[in-house]
Amino acid sequence: MLEPSTVAHVHTRLRETSPLVQVITNYVSMDIAANLLNAAGASPAMVHDAHESGEFARIAGAVVANIGTLSDPWVDGMLAAVAQAEADGTPWILDPVAVGATTFRRDTVDRLLEHNPAVIRGNASEILAIATSAGAGRGVDADAAVEDVRSDAEALASKLGTVVAMTGATDLVTDGTRSVTITGGDPRAPMITALGCSASALVAACCAVHDDALEASASALAILSAAVEKAGEKAEGPGSLRWRLLDALSTLSADEAAAVAAR
Amino acid sequence: MLEPSTVAHVHTRLRETSPLVQVITNYVSMDIAANLLNAAGASPAMVHDAHESGEFARIAGAVVANIGTLSDPWVDGMLAAVAQAEADGTPWILDPVAVGATTFRRDTVDRLLEHNPAVIRGNASEILAIATSAGAGRGVDADAAVEDVRSDAEALASKLGTVVAMTGATDLVTDGTRSVTITGGDPRAPMITALGCSASALVAACCAVHDDALEASASALAILSAAVEKAGEKAEGPGSLRWRLLDALSTLSADEAAAVAAR
Amino acid sequence: MLEPSTVAHVHTRLRETSPLVQVITNYVSMDIAANLLNAAGASPAMVHDAHESGEFARIAGAVVANIGTLSDPWVDGMLAAVAQAEADGTPWILDPVAVGATTFRRDTVDRLLEHNPAVIRGNASEILAIATSAGAGRGVDADAAVEDVRSDAEALASKLGTVVAMTGATDLVTDGTRSVTITGGDPRAPMITALGCSASALVAACCAVHDDALEASASALAILSAAVEKAGEKAEGPGSLRWRLLDALSTLSADEAAAVAAR
Repeated sequence: MLEPSTVAHVHTRLRETSPLVQVITNYVSMDIAANLLNAAGASPAMVHDAHESGEFARIAGAVVANIGTLSDPWVDGMLAAVAQAEADGTPWILDPVAVGATTFRRDTVDRLLEHNPAVIRGNASEILAIATSAGAGRGVDADAAVEDVRSDAEALASKLGTVVAMTGATDLVTDGTRSVTITGGDPRAPMITALGCSASALVAACCAVHDDALEASASALAILSAAVEKAGEKAEGPGSLRWRLLDALSTLSADEAAAVAAR
Repeated sequence: MLEPSTVAHVHTRLRETSPLVQVITNYVSMDIAANLLNAAGASPAMVHDAHESGEFARIAGAVVANIGTLSDPWVDGMLAAVAQAEADGTPWILDPVAVGATTFRRDTVDRLLEHNPAVIRGNASEILAIATSAGAGRGVDADAAVEDVRSDAEALASKLGTVVAMTGATDLVTDGTRSVTITGGDPRAPMITALGCSASALVAACCAVHDDALEASASALAILSAAVEKAGEKAEGPGSLRWRLLDALSTLSADEAAAVAAR
Repeated sequence: MLEPSTVAHVHTRLRETSPLVQVITNYVSMDIAANLLNAAGASPAMVHDAHESGEFARIAGAVVANIGTLSDPWVDGMLAAVAQAEADGTPWILDPVAVGATTFRRDTVDRLLEHNPAVIRGNASEILAIATSAGAGRGVDADAAVEDVRSDAEALASKLGTVVAMTGATDLVTDGTRSVTITGGDPRAPMITALGCSASALVAACCAVHDDALEASASALAILSAAVEKAGEKAEGPGSLRWRLLDALSTLSADEAAAVAAR
């Protein structure tokens, strides 16, 4: 369902246009998310405070709101940015890190969801928690797997009119009608902290250069899977997997990215 | 005094149980501390704000409070988390970064110490500063060495009823009665920024899986020393030492970890 | 105009005296800026909050104020630190990240500039934006190149009585009267996120050990160029360029650093 030529197209557009992506993200992911966007050809900008996040969103090609290390000023900054993005028709991506863990996270996600994200990118437990809260899921499970949450993800996407990009050993991207799975990567990838947050940032970058959010999200995950897999060939652990991922991403060809979709 | 079999046991438990460690730490250490915990088998969560830090501490196996980049909201978040940890009997670790440098740091450490940390992990200057402030040390010295501060550290541990883990070229772990020294590592390790902060996080992870805080702390430092030493064999500077450390930690065997204790 | 012997002198002084540099910088750059200073022989301290930033500035050899991820509490902390630095005659460096992008950034830079920075380190677009705002530049251009902004940079340096260090494919350092260009580095260096922020931190470290701010700034950029170039010989992308840069910086000889000035 994901055409290899679409992935190749998105990959090439990223490098040709270097979209400006406003990434409001947690402290842990700042370094890796910015470096990963740079390696992929995009232009990251971590502008989070309400004094300027809305103003900056006007010039951004896409916006990320990631709740990993939350506090009130950051919630205000995220809301200002995504409200502006919504008003301008700029795609924005929600990364609901550990949304099931605390009341503060659940409440913040509820407020953010009022502004119609183009994509929700999370792991199976996070997607299940949101789906259940939205009346489209079947409970909470901290160790949920992508395949077990597929129907919840599809129901959530339909209900909210958004794309859900759920990552794990296999990735699932769905808009409720169309669903795409992506395989690849490396079993050691979960040891790279904030790789999921960085995936959300890359999804945003691809949404900035390609209007179909399902295709853009799936292409982002295909590009990332291809690069992780290439990096894994010579990596000896999570430390070398990380820097080799950045090297691989910066030198990845459109054909290598597209090959993941052809599986 | 530190049995090799204890280190091997703690090392194995870390990987088998993947304890959830709440790390309230400074901005500089976020990336390396999280990646180091992941490589060692633990599960890091950087949840710092008072809106949720106490609630989150209820599900954490251990908590770290690190004062490296301090501000009022973070002090509030640390106090909420460590108060909850104290109430639940969850071990928490104090990392008093540069406590001697400013009034704000000294005052904050005084407030945190009221909540009975299981372990204080710092360098010799930091331990000496706390010991002196607590009436158990002999002055302040920004360039203090572990061996010169041994008696101050033992007196501090006795007075507060805590474990003191003092790191340097040689590490000393003491509860005032029992004292263990750990040798190993690499002379270039101090060039890896926030490696001490990451050591505190690993001490917390080990305290989450082993009840004896002295043995847990010493095992954490033995595991780290073994991995740094292994990484140093091929490292050409602090950049490669860092990623090789993560690789080494993720592939370290229980025997390799235990060997440090057998010296 | 930049004597190789000056670069060698500054390089050696860095390692001999390990100056304490207070780096108030954005979240993205925390890790790399601290590690880069450590690798170069300096001693970084990220102390940002107004509760302690002024007090800490008294013991720092130099201070950096970087506006990359701005918010009100950080502005207060920067102002407290640079006011103390100004009062003590301690050199401080302004890094005006993306100053042209928002009102908040322009206003903050105006307030910081009242405290007489020793050096302003930025890219061509940032320098042009400040010069234009100060009545010494010819407009705003997000894609400005160093060579095109040379006269604006010199006019800005003269008008403010400061050193302007403008980095790009070629670097220009000027105090309005004397101007130095530095070539070298690697074309992939812009893919290392926050390398410019880290350059500002290294400029600060060199200003802490050498009184002539123009020579100190140019020496910092020469040292960095030499290390990046050395790292680039074996790097296969931005991931390996980054860790190889830290390795190269930690083992760079005074002769290798000086060679860049001799070009």
